[in-house]
Amino acid sequence: MMDEVLGQIRNIIKEQKRILTDKADLYSYSYDASFGVHLPDIVVQPKSAQEVTHIMKLANKHLIPVYPRGQGTSLSGGPLPVKGGIVLDFSKWDDKLEIDREDMVAIVSPGVLTSNINDAAMEQGFIYPPDPSSSHVSTIGGNLAENSGGPRGLKYGVTKDYVIGLEVVTPEGEIIRTGGRTVKNVTGYDLTKLIVGSEGTLGIITEATLRLYPKPQGNQTLMAVFDEMADSGKAITNILSAGILPAKLELMDNASITAVEAYEPLGLPTDAEALILIELDGHPAAIADESERVRQVCEAADAKEVIIAANEQEAENLWKARKLVSPAIVREKPTKISEDATVPRSKIPAMFQRLKEIKEKYQVDLVVFGHAGDGNLHPNIIADKRDKDEMQRVEQAVEGIFQAAIELGGTLSGEHGIGTLKAPFMEMELGEVGLDMMKRIKQSWDPNHILNPGKIFPEPGQKLVLSDG
Amino acid sequence: MMDEVLGQIRNIIKEQKRILTDKADLYSYSYDASFGVHLPDIVVQPKSAQEVTHIMKLANKHLIPVYPRGQGTSLSGGPLPVKGGIVLDFSKWDDKLEIDREDMVAIVSPGVLTSNINDAAMEQGFIYPPDPSSSHVSTIGGNLAENSGGPRGLKYGVTKDYVIGLEVVTPEGEIIRTGGRTVKNVTGYDLTKLIVGSEGTLGIITEATLRLYPKPQGNQTLMAVFDEMADSGKAITNILSAGILPAKLELMDNASITAVEAYEPLGLPTDAEALILIELDGHPAAIADESERVRQVCEAADAKEVIIAANEQEAENLWKARKLVSPAIVREKPTKISEDATVPRSKIPAMFQRLKEIKEKYQVDLVVFGHAGDGNLHPNIIADKRDKDEMQRVEQAVEGIFQAAIELGGTLSGEHGIGTLKAPFMEMELGEVGLDMMKRIKQSWDPNHILNPGKIFPEPGQKLVLSDG
Repeated sequence: MMDEVLGQIRNIIKEQKRILTDKADLYSYSYDASFGVHLPDIVVQPKSAQEVTHIMKLANKHLIPVYPRGQGTSLSGGPLPVKGGIVLDFSKWDDKLEIDREDMVAIVSPGVLTSNINDAAMEQGFIYPPDPSSSHVSTIGGNLAENSGGPRGLKYGVTKDYVIGLEVVTPEGEIIRTGGRTVKNVTGYDLTKLIVGSEGTLGIITEATLRLYPKPQGNQTLMAVFDEMADSGKAITNILSAGILPAKLELMDNASITAVEAYEPLGLPTDAEALILIELDGHPAAIADESERVRQVCEAADAKEVIIAANEQEAENLWKARKLVSPAIVREKPTKISEDATVPRSKIPAMFQRLKEIKEKYQVDLVVFGHAGDGNLHPNIIADKRDKDEMQRVEQAVEGIFQAAIELGGTLSGEHGIGTLKAPFMEMELGEVGLDMMKRIKQSWDPNHILNPGKIFPEPGQKLVLSDG
Repeated sequence: MMDEVLGQIRNIIKEQKRILTDKADLYSYSYDASFGVHLPDIVVQPKSAQEVTHIMKLANKHLIPVYPRGQGTSLSGGPLPVKGGIVLDFSKWDDKLEIDREDMVAIVSPGVLTSNINDAAMEQGFIYPPDPSSSHVSTIGGNLAENSGGPRGLKYGVTKDYVIGLEVVTPEGEIIRTGGRTVKNVTGYDLTKLIVGSEGTLGIITEATLRLYPKPQGNQTLMAVFDEMADSGKAITNILSAGILPAKLELMDNASITAVEAYEPLGLPTDAEALILIELDGHPAAIADESERVRQVCEAADAKEVIIAANEQEAENLWKARKLVSPAIVREKPTKISEDATVPRSKIPAMFQRLKEIKEKYQVDLVVFGHAGDGNLHPNIIADKRDKDEMQRVEQAVEGIFQAAIELGGTLSGEHGIGTLKAPFMEMELGEVGLDMMKRIKQSWDPNHILNPGKIFPEPGQKLVLSDG
């Protein structure tokens, strides 16, 4: 049957080089930045909504699974072709990136790299605020599917907050337009915000209209160092309730600090329990005043040191510490399990306590850093996936992290998505009825369950598996 | 059958005074701030999610329509009991209004007045930004159902942007919790943002968790007066692309200006084609500088006068002009048809031209004001609903307004919702497939179609009717 389907795809996609069937090529699409290897049967690189509709209609007729994919940087398994079938690779479809100055929007095709959108916006005096760490290598299509976050989430929100219109191909191959070019729109159900973050299970995004923001006139970076983790939490709350909303508010624990310092000596305080990095942005006079107040708040919360960057070079040096956490920790062991369980801000100290217990109980290498301002921590476990025993302890530790986050009123995922990895834990957070209401939407939109199957919704009895990746 | 149902409701709601069946009482629930009069059979005033679940289960068993209602300020017919049945009046359920300073959230029950949330937040150094004009008389439950906007939408967004968690009773009477207390959450489909703005057709909100913002440290009001409407549009674009994002950016056309001046002489420039009112907020040093720059931008765009309020009293006087538009125009004629068709910001001049043509073609009294910064205009037609001939011309004019907005890439409704009034025009904006995807969600969640029937989705052949209201 696949041969017949392939023949029909060759009629849909005129440029034959955009159809890949070689084993070597298929292998490149069998994995992402999470776990598991699954070979697709065919890879297609579409470049128009029309091509996508034809393929979806064909796939529906033959009940073949279809998986949209950007650059494959997903940490949760979003684009993995777990049931075989067709991968739609959108990374080549990057021809549209228009900035409309008057409407303050960007119109983009799905394969555009996210950082290119911000660059183009900056040239016109705007910013596109969402800044996932992968923004230089990930496509906007992937960011939209996963509703990506990033450090600027505290002040500016996440991807979803900037999407005001979409062109979407439905699972049955029809083209719809949701929202539009206006920031306010209450005409019917908000399909835009339903599709963004649905991890490619409800529709395939073929164009997006993104809201831009005026570019802030200046910014200022600070670092505050704490002997006690609890004090850093107090400082964070008091900064925010002093009427100051930093663009970024990042935290590193002692394990992150020492890992970075071992990787590249930056003069970081390796005896500190925590440090926070703050970026203020806005009018220069405002941020000059605000950074002085942030310093006072941190000192009142027993910071042992507060550094205010004197210039851009010093600011970059301070941020370097945060940027080096990931490379530093993977040098210690090759396998990194990057979680993003998120708790209410007030529960950060309790979450740190739980993470400490998990680390001891399962004897895993756990490092914590992340977006403390919005409660979106990144507990990372480093391990060696060839060590089966260790990986089983990691699985248990990850389950413990999810449980702790939910018990503290938080969520499984703040920004990486559910994909294949977290599907087994969905009911734990949502309850049976909550999950069922999501399934009803999926069922009503994709009655054949061919669009990105195996994601979000758990299979009966599905468990977290990292050890055979 | 209603008697049997009433008997069972009396078992569910222990306080009998919260069950209303008198004709006089029922009449109070037969209308809202839009058009049409529809008597319900029973009104219930629930005060817990448990009561709501029992009523929904009962209603499903007997296939009786149920309509959630706040204070009935809807301009689109949202709470009208168009098919008889049970109205659930949530305006008495206002006992919960908690501000959590650390998590920067408010937890509220559905009957709380929206302005009370902002007042409570302000006491703790925060704001709840959404500010629909009705916020002193409308409930948060109604605001959530309709995804209300307001002047601060330009900088701060709308109701939906502040909702991070909900407790909801499904149409079949189950309780679910969506989202939570974290700003970032990508666990499954975003049911929170699907339910907010679904106009009470997908679920009944029994509690909401709302995000708060640090309270800005100061604000500044300016007024700029223009001889040419096009120049005011140029000024608006140039303010925003200069990196300045005002909290409010409101516009009044000549008809609004002269109506207000006739109602209460404020010394407004009655010969001007347009004036814009701007509120800047933020750090005092920043807004001092920004107001000077706004003045320069406006003058460069040929403003004939720019006034910067010297103090709070002067600011209030400037805003008085905008506040008096509604009372001023209804003094001229008793019936006000308040539309909220929204266009991309760049299309505001074209929309003004179309509105002028509509006014002349149908000989209606059309006044335009509104939230120009985000393209959300409020074309208001004043008429006398006893004059059948005039009302028929009004119906045609309203249809013309919708058509113009959609042709210019805009939307039927920026903040008032679809309800009964705009349902006939849904397909014009969304197309058949787009509307069908919404209907599928409704069908999958409310298979008996008992929750707020007759709203959003048009009945076959349904037309706009204002004249028999």
